[in-house]
Amino acid sequence: MSQTSQPAADRATRLQRARDVCGANGKICPPERTTQLLEAIIMSGDRVALEGDNQKQADFLAACLAKMDPARVHDLHMVQSVLALPDHLAVFERGIANRLDFAFAGPQSRRLAELVAAKALKIGAIHTYLELYARMLVDLTPHVALVVADKADRGGNLYTGPNTEDTPTIVEAAAFRGGIVVAQVNEIVDRLPRVDIPGDWVDVVVPGPKPYAIDPLFTRDPAKIRNENVLMAMMAISAVYEPYQVTRLNHGIGYATAAIELLLPTFAARRGLKGKVARNFVLNPHPTLIPAIESGFVDSVYCFGSELGMERYVANRAHVFPIGADGSLRSNRTLAQVAGQYACDLFVGGTLQIDPQGNSSTATKGRITGFGGAPNMGADARGRRHDSPAWLRAGEEAGESLRGRKLVVQMVQTRQPNGAPSFVERLDAYDLAASAGFALPPVMVYGDDVSHVITEQGVCNLLRCRSPGEREAALRAVAGDTDFGKRQDAETTEALRRRGIVMFPSDLGIESATATRDWLAAKTIDDLVVASGGLYAPPAKFRTVARA
Amino acid sequence: MSQTSQPAADRATRLQRARDVCGANGKICPPERTTQLLEAIIMSGDRVALEGDNQKQADFLAACLAKMDPARVHDLHMVQSVLALPDHLAVFERGIANRLDFAFAGPQSRRLAELVAAKALKIGAIHTYLELYARMLVDLTPHVALVVADKADRGGNLYTGPNTEDTPTIVEAAAFRGGIVVAQVNEIVDRLPRVDIPGDWVDVVVPGPKPYAIDPLFTRDPAKIRNENVLMAMMAISAVYEPYQVTRLNHGIGYATAAIELLLPTFAARRGLKGKVARNFVLNPHPTLIPAIESGFVDSVYCFGSELGMERYVANRAHVFPIGADGSLRSNRTLAQVAGQYACDLFVGGTLQIDPQGNSSTATKGRITGFGGAPNMGADARGRRHDSPAWLRAGEEAGESLRGRKLVVQMVQTRQPNGAPSFVERLDAYDLAASAGFALPPVMVYGDDVSHVITEQGVCNLLRCRSPGEREAALRAVAGDTDFGKRQDAETTEALRRRGIVMFPSDLGIESATATRDWLAAKTIDDLVVASGGLYAPPAKFRTVARA
Repeated sequence: MSQTSQPAADRATRLQRARDVCGANGKICPPERTTQLLEAIIMSGDRVALEGDNQKQADFLAACLAKMDPARVHDLHMVQSVLALPDHLAVFERGIANRLDFAFAGPQSRRLAELVAAKALKIGAIHTYLELYARMLVDLTPHVALVVADKADRGGNLYTGPNTEDTPTIVEAAAFRGGIVVAQVNEIVDRLPRVDIPGDWVDVVVPGPKPYAIDPLFTRDPAKIRNENVLMAMMAISAVYEPYQVTRLNHGIGYATAAIELLLPTFAARRGLKGKVARNFVLNPHPTLIPAIESGFVDSVYCFGSELGMERYVANRAHVFPIGADGSLRSNRTLAQVAGQYACDLFVGGTLQIDPQGNSSTATKGRITGFGGAPNMGADARGRRHDSPAWLRAGEEAGESLRGRKLVVQMVQTRQPNGAPSFVERLDAYDLAASAGFALPPVMVYGDDVSHVITEQGVCNLLRCRSPGEREAALRAVAGDTDFGKRQDAETTEALRRRGIVMFPSDLGIESATATRDWLAAKTIDDLVVASGGLYAPPAKFRTVARA
Repeated sequence: MSQTSQPAADRATRLQRARDVCGANGKICPPERTTQLLEAIIMSGDRVALEGDNQKQADFLAACLAKMDPARVHDLHMVQSVLALPDHLAVFERGIANRLDFAFAGPQSRRLAELVAAKALKIGAIHTYLELYARMLVDLTPHVALVVADKADRGGNLYTGPNTEDTPTIVEAAAFRGGIVVAQVNEIVDRLPRVDIPGDWVDVVVPGPKPYAIDPLFTRDPAKIRNENVLMAMMAISAVYEPYQVTRLNHGIGYATAAIELLLPTFAARRGLKGKVARNFVLNPHPTLIPAIESGFVDSVYCFGSELGMERYVANRAHVFPIGADGSLRSNRTLAQVAGQYACDLFVGGTLQIDPQGNSSTATKGRITGFGGAPNMGADARGRRHDSPAWLRAGEEAGESLRGRKLVVQMVQTRQPNGAPSFVERLDAYDLAASAGFALPPVMVYGDDVSHVITEQGVCNLLRCRSPGEREAALRAVAGDTDFGKRQDAETTEALRRRGIVMFPSDLGIESATATRDWLAAKTIDDLVVASGGLYAPPAKFRTVARA
């Protein structure tokens, strides 16, 4: 391990070099001198935090970093949440960087695995977002932070707009460890709509040649929700939301959770649950939540980031979303992860594979995907001390005498869209760990943290299981016609059903034949636009699909 | 539950009333009009976040709040980290507030219990700090936040100085929910040393009539460390720090942990542990850490808050502490709690009572103390995914096949200073829960999260216990001549000792007779001042004691 901090003298030297590059422009670096700037302030062996978020990307700074001369700057240790762009890997391919600590690499997961196999880089660890931020404050403190914002003024004050995301945390981690903070912005203005990050914490501002890259990751087109998703959503509401009185919750991304959101004003309202469940969300502004918000189902939504196209809608729903005095969203991924962990009674997520003990993973051979935020929210928060009806009931069912339990629900169809079974005897994560040299397999959510698994076949309540054998049988009971499911005999399933460990739709009063798309409060993207009163402006790719 | 958010119109009305009170002074409210200001902006039934921190207090705002006319403003719901001042209870006594969600009430714990018994207020829940912040973002969003900082400029920008603590999180929770933010400051200046909180987020600034109250809570006088504390510190280093190679850690407050800090440059250095253990702390600037820092033992310290008297020392050790470009500490309680949870392999704390399963509590009858931050850091972080030698070894010992474990150490003498046994068959927390109407007893750290308990008798390693019976026997083995300890027969203890579950000093190569204060790198407060090169300026009460 190298030193975690830098002496002030080091910072002064680097800052002087930055000033030399910026010249008469003060804190503003002309875009064409950005690679030169980075070569001036970054030294070989530095830890560099590149903003690499879930949604927005410091893409111009990433490109300039990858253009540096590896003869001058090398052996960098990259610390970044998300590897999303080819340039995020180019620094390793070009020999500029050789170490990586990160949280998620979805789009670059295959190439990352190849580079690890080729020994072009060494992964320190795969983290959750919150863990990575924690380490950026403790032992992975950045020497240089390269971040992104919407606008800056000449004092270096930053306006992030609705996608604040990770920026304040990365900047705080670097600025108060003698690090140099460089921000790419779309625009330099005289007066910001609001200050999201004080200029005192920012050393150099680079106006990017074009607006930074950002992805609409949380938009699910209702047209793609299938009847099976509706059935699963009905079961989630009937078997979890209603009996546990879940008011504070977090949803992962996926068509099953999108279906739940679209069933709140219809199916859930019909069951008299308005005002009783799903009131306080920790969630990005999912377009599929619009009908529930418009029907008054939802009191509040606290956000990790924003969602492209939702800006105007969100700004007009200040009673629901965190909005600044300037009228636009302030999101915060660090605080939202904390809120998801400690202020929510329920996390609903999806996965690719589940094993006989309920361990789940999105890792597959040849791809190093990472975790993102799911493990943080999909784990029992043992540091929690306040109670709620949901938490207490879950704890009682689990046989806890001194504490409650978080509800952690995995919704997964028995087969993936490509036909591969979602239930497996052994996770691919073990092979990945062996090939990548990890000490432990990358498990997304551990089985002993999972409370319920919901498939199109039924629901199993793992809280009520008292042995590994029971847990396994409960999972096989909802695994349908996969090999995993066929290993179970009908009697075992019936016994679990009598004990309320396994619930089929009919046990929940749901007639499967009635579980259709008709329940959806919006059936297309256009329906969402209408529901929003015309405030939601879907990105082009969703408009095309909806009208295809 | 009431609505969590406020419409923008509501904010505009309140803000106009605030402007009317401030008059020509813009954002600045003259101190003599502060109660009038609060009566103008706070409405009956509001949730009010009063900064009530662990260290610094918005004491003038607390006093003005308690002076409001309960006929005009009543039924307030107070949301605050710490109840430290009589005025924090006066709002309940005077009928201005009647609900409370909080985290810690050390100094006011007895009076709080009386008020609860008299039904002057209803406690929503007792939280950890991080939980309470999480809920302030989700379902306990403040309508009004009353905070404290060192300095403000006329734009409302705030400089918190080294004790940033909770302020940014409280302000963010209120400012982006249409709430009104009022800051008490010691001074209004033209130019701040640095901006800690942007003025856009702050509506009104009140110059306090005198500097805000702040307590040196983390100063332990080395003169009060006893030989027993030294012995326990030697065992902690030998049985935990060394074998688990603990580099990232957090210490609670107490003489046992102070002794560890003062033994790093002596006992631990003698064992060749410099550079190998205790390198990265998440800790307030404990004066007892000065010798370890000066000897180069410590790479970095990330801070929840600051400590009175340590300001100049900390500012001069920018390679160790998080320091801004202005040259002073930036602390952050929220981020430090996250760092303590996710970036540390070890938490060492103390307690008043431990039960046969290792559950510990500081609750006693007639006192509602609260938790503070210990449960968050003294729990296994199940959302953690990155590994380290310490975490992996702890997990292996606990029989985990898929994950590691956090080291959670409780250091407690078998008897408290008043002679009461620290080991009890039943925690007082049960009686408190019954009398206060809590659903569950307020347990500080759960036994199944504890890895080691260290007394002056020895160490027990609970990770290696495979049953409740073994756990109980391990605890009785180190409980000395208390009734709890006497219930154990010597054979059982010997069997545990052979299996490495129980370790006495001699098992660790420690001769108890040599465990004396001679090992302390500083024996008095004056020694700490000398070690700091004269930079540490102890508060008067410690200077007096040291020279008495």
